Amino acid sequence: MRLPAILGLLEAVCLVSGGVVVPGPASLRTASRPDPGVLYDSRTYRTCYVTQKIDHFGFSEDGTFKQRYLIADQHWKRNIGSMLFYTGNEGDITWFANNTGLMWNIAEELDAILVFAEHRYYGESLPFGNKSFSDAKHLNYLTSEQALADFAVLIQHLKHTIPGTQDTPVIAIGGSYGGMLAAWFRMKYPHIVIGALAASAPIWQFDNLVPCGSFYRIVTEDFKKSGNCCSESIRNSWAAIDRLASTEEGLHWLSCTFRLCSPLKTVTDAAAFKGWLSETWVNLAMVDYPYKADFLQPLPAWPIKAVCKYLRNPKLPDKLLLQNILQAVDVYYNYTGRASCLNLTQTATKSLGIQGWYYQACTEMVMPMCSDGINDMFEPENWDLKTYSDECFKTWGVRPRPDWISTLYGGKNISAHSNIIFSNGGLDPWSGGGVTQNITDTLVAIVIPEGAHHLDLRSNSPYDPDSVLQARLLEVHYMRLWLQNYRRNGSK
Amino acid sequence: MRLPAILGLLEAVCLVSGGVVVPGPASLRTASRPDPGVLYDSRTYRTCYVTQKIDHFGFSEDGTFKQRYLIADQHWKRNIGSMLFYTGNEGDITWFANNTGLMWNIAEELDAILVFAEHRYYGESLPFGNKSFSDAKHLNYLTSEQALADFAVLIQHLKHTIPGTQDTPVIAIGGSYGGMLAAWFRMKYPHIVIGALAASAPIWQFDNLVPCGSFYRIVTEDFKKSGNCCSESIRNSWAAIDRLASTEEGLHWLSCTFRLCSPLKTVTDAAAFKGWLSETWVNLAMVDYPYKADFLQPLPAWPIKAVCKYLRNPKLPDKLLLQNILQAVDVYYNYTGRASCLNLTQTATKSLGIQGWYYQACTEMVMPMCSDGINDMFEPENWDLKTYSDECFKTWGVRPRPDWISTLYGGKNISAHSNIIFSNGGLDPWSGGGVTQNITDTLVAIVIPEGAHHLDLRSNSPYDPDSVLQARLLEVHYMRLWLQNYRRNGSK
Repeated sequence: MRLPAILGLLEAVCLVSGGVVVPGPASLRTASRPDPGVLYDSRTYRTCYVTQKIDHFGFSEDGTFKQRYLIADQHWKRNIGSMLFYTGNEGDITWFANNTGLMWNIAEELDAILVFAEHRYYGESLPFGNKSFSDAKHLNYLTSEQALADFAVLIQHLKHTIPGTQDTPVIAIGGSYGGMLAAWFRMKYPHIVIGALAASAPIWQFDNLVPCGSFYRIVTEDFKKSGNCCSESIRNSWAAIDRLASTEEGLHWLSCTFRLCSPLKTVTDAAAFKGWLSETWVNLAMVDYPYKADFLQPLPAWPIKAVCKYLRNPKLPDKLLLQNILQAVDVYYNYTGRASCLNLTQTATKSLGIQGWYYQACTEMVMPMCSDGINDMFEPENWDLKTYSDECFKTWGVRPRPDWISTLYGGKNISAHSNIIFSNGGLDPWSGGGVTQNITDTLVAIVIPEGAHHLDLRSNSPYDPDSVLQARLLEVHYMRLWLQNYRRNGSK
Repeated sequence: MRLPAILGLLEAVCLVSGGVVVPGPASLRTASRPDPGVLYDSRTYRTCYVTQKIDHFGFSEDGTFKQRYLIADQHWKRNIGSMLFYTGNEGDITWFANNTGLMWNIAEELDAILVFAEHRYYGESLPFGNKSFSDAKHLNYLTSEQALADFAVLIQHLKHTIPGTQDTPVIAIGGSYGGMLAAWFRMKYPHIVIGALAASAPIWQFDNLVPCGSFYRIVTEDFKKSGNCCSESIRNSWAAIDRLASTEEGLHWLSCTFRLCSPLKTVTDAAAFKGWLSETWVNLAMVDYPYKADFLQPLPAWPIKAVCKYLRNPKLPDKLLLQNILQAVDVYYNYTGRASCLNLTQTATKSLGIQGWYYQACTEMVMPMCSDGINDMFEPENWDLKTYSDECFKTWGVRPRPDWISTLYGGKNISAHSNIIFSNGGLDPWSGGGVTQNITDTLVAIVIPEGAHHLDLRSNSPYDPDSVLQARLLEVHYMRLWLQNYRRNGSK
C-alpha cells in the first residue's frame, strides 16, 4: 500500500511570548525582481498557546490541551487592517511559517496581522502529550473537523483578547492539506473567515471524484518533460530491481550500491525499496521549484531536470541503469553531500508528522490512487480499498470511511459557497485532485503552469516564473475585493 | 433552574415497510377555506431504518445504530419532483409527521416525496438501545452536529437506493429545534439541501444574542392580550403560593385543591409546583392556536383566552385566586375531563423526549432565560450560568458550553448563507430568539402576527388566520424559486 504523503504544506493570553528571529528565504515584493543576492530578511513572531477542548463535538471528554500558534503583527493596522490566518496542516507550524513567504510578503500591503495555527497532533500541539499516538482512543480527536473547530475557537479567542481585532476581517490561507482546510474552513465557518486561499488543495482527490491515476500520471509527465527518456528509465528500473532482488547477491548489490542504512534481505524489503523510490519521484514532482530550495529536502533549482540528467538511457543493463537511478536519487537525498547512508523510512523533512498523517489517511483522508505503468512510469497497482482498510485496521485499529469527506464537504457540489481561491501548479501531482476551473464568480481557480506544489505560497524569488507572479497578484486582488466588500457592507 | 422545553427515516433498504394509515387533522389546500366538517384525510407512509455510525466525527467508536425515518411518495414525480425532508427534533418522528400537515398539504403541488427523519436518541432511534441515557459516555453522541450528519448520510443513502431520486432537489423543513436543524443543515450542508424552511427556530436564543428576558416577556404579552387582568392574576399567584406554602396546612390545601398526584410536603416541593405552573403558562403560549388542537395537550381554540376567562380578578384573597388558577390550569391539563390527578413531572405530550432534551440543554443548547416580574408575569430570576452548569454536572456529569453554538453556527453573522426561510409567530415566545427580519434576499423572514409556535407547519384549517395562509403561500413561493434555480443551472 503506497500512501503518498501530502504536503504543504491561550489560556487567556500568550503563555510564551517574545521576539524569535527566524531567518528564512524571503524578499519584499517589488515590481521588478529583486537582486538575487538579497534573499533573506528576518521574520519575527511570538509563539503563543491557546487552550482548546480535546473534543469539540462531545461532552464526556472535557479535557483540554494547548494549541500552539504564531503571531506577527509588525504590519498590522488597527481598524483598517486584516488578519491572515494560516490553517496549519500536518507538521510543525514553525516550518510552515518559514515556508509560507507569501504571507510575510503581503502583510504590509494588507496591513495584516499574521497568525499561523498549528494543527492538533502535530508539532507541539499534542492533545495527550506523548501518549497522543498511543492508540485509537487517544487518536480519536485527530480529524479535520476538530482542527477546523480549533481554528474557529482560536480566532474568536484572538478577537476577544487582542484589542482592536474584534472587527478585523480574517482570511484563511493554507497549502496542500492546509489548503483543503482553508477552503473547508470558509465553507463551514463563513462567519469567521471572509475568504480563503486554498493553494494546491486536492479537495477532489476523494471518493473517486477524479480518476485514481491522475496523480502518478502528472508525476510522470513532469519527468517526461524534464529530460529525454527520463520517465522510461524509471519505468524500466522496476523490473531491473525485481531481477536483482531475486538473488541474495543482487539484494546485497542493491543495498551496497544505494548505501542503504538497513540492507535489503527479502523480497518484501525490495518492495519497500521500490516504494521508497516511488515516493522519491513523487516528492521531486511536488518540489520541482525553479530555484534552489529546502522544503522537503535541500535541492537544486528545477530538481527533476537535475535528476533526469542521469536518466537518459533506459535500455542499459540492470546494474548500469540502477547506478544511474542512484545518481538521480542522490540529487534528492544527498544534494548537500552529507548523507552517509540512505534511510528508507525517511523521505522528507522531519518537520512533517508522518504518523499523524498516516492515521488521517486511514480514517478521513482516503485518496484513491492507482497506476498502470502505461500512462505513468510506475508499477501497475490498482486501488484496493479492502487491502487498504485491512492495513489501516492492523496498524491503528480503525477503518477508513472513504465517502465521509464528500458527504461532509460536498465533493464537487460546492457552488453554494463563496470567496475561495483555488490555486494549483501545473507540475504538481496534487493538481489532479484540485479545482482548476472557476466554479462561480467567487469560487475561482488559478493555474500556474510552471508551478509545483503551492509555489505561490512561497516567498517571492528572482527566479519565479511570470505565471506565479501573476498568480500572487491575482490572489491579492481577490483578497482586496473581499476586504472591500466586508468594509462596505459588513457582508461576508 | 427552569428549562423551558423547546418543541417543535435502512440497512440498504427499508426493513419495515407497508402502508400505515395515520389519521390526522388535515385538509387539502384550496383557495377558499374548506368545509370545517372535512378535516381528516388519511396519510400513508412507510417506516424505514437506515444504519448510521454512532460517531460520525471519530473512528474509535465504530458502532452503528438504526435511525428510523418515514417516507411518503404518493405525490412524488420522478425527474421533475422534489424531496421535502423533515429534520426531526426532540421526539418521536411519527408525532412530528402527524403535526407537520404543511408537508402533506404541499406534497402534490411540489411533486414531492416526503421524508421525516427521526433525531438520534429520540423515538426508536436509540444509539445504544435502552442504555442510551445511562451515563455521559452513552449520551456523548447526542449533539446537533451528529444529527445533521445523520440527515446528510440518510439523504445520500436515499439518493443511492431509491431509483430516480439521484438528482432530486431536497428542501429541509423543520420546526422549533427542528427548525434550527433545518437552518443549520442548509448552512453546513448546502450541497445536500437546496434550501430550508426553519419555522419558529430560535437560532439566536444563545450566547446572549438576544435579551434573556424576551421569552417570558412574550409569554406575558400573550396573556395580557387574551383577557383583562389575566397576567396580573398570574403574577400575583406566586406570592399567594408562597404564603400558603409556608404552613403545612397551606401545602395540604394546595395539594388537594390542585389534585396533585404527589402532595407537596416542603418548600422545595412548592418551588417545583411554581416551576410546573410557569411551564404550563409557557406551553400555553406556544400552542395558542386558533382552533381546537392536540399538540402538547388536547386544547380548545385560542386556549389562552379560555384560560384567561378564569383570571379576571388578581386581587382576590389567596385561596380564591388559586382556585381560579386551578380552573385555568385545568384548561391545559384536563380539557378532556379525564385527568384524575395532575402530575408535576409531565407538562406535555409523552411523544417528546424530555430526558434527551434536558441533556442537550445541558451541553450545547444553552439558552439564557431570565424574568424580572415587571416586564413579565413571572417571579424574578436571573440567568445564572454557574448554578445551571452545576445542576447539569450533578445530573449528567457534563458541563454546558454556552458559546459553542454561536462559534459553530455563526450567531448573528450568517449573511454568507442563502435559501433559508425563517418563519415566526408573533404569539410564540421563541420568536424572541428567532430571525424576524430579512437578512439578505435569500435569507428571508416571515412573521405571522397571530401565529403561535410554528403554526405555519400545521395542516390548513378553516380557522387559520389570513397571516398564516399568506405565510404558507410565501413559503411555497420561495421553495418554487429554489427548485427553479436548481433546475435551471443546477446551482444551489
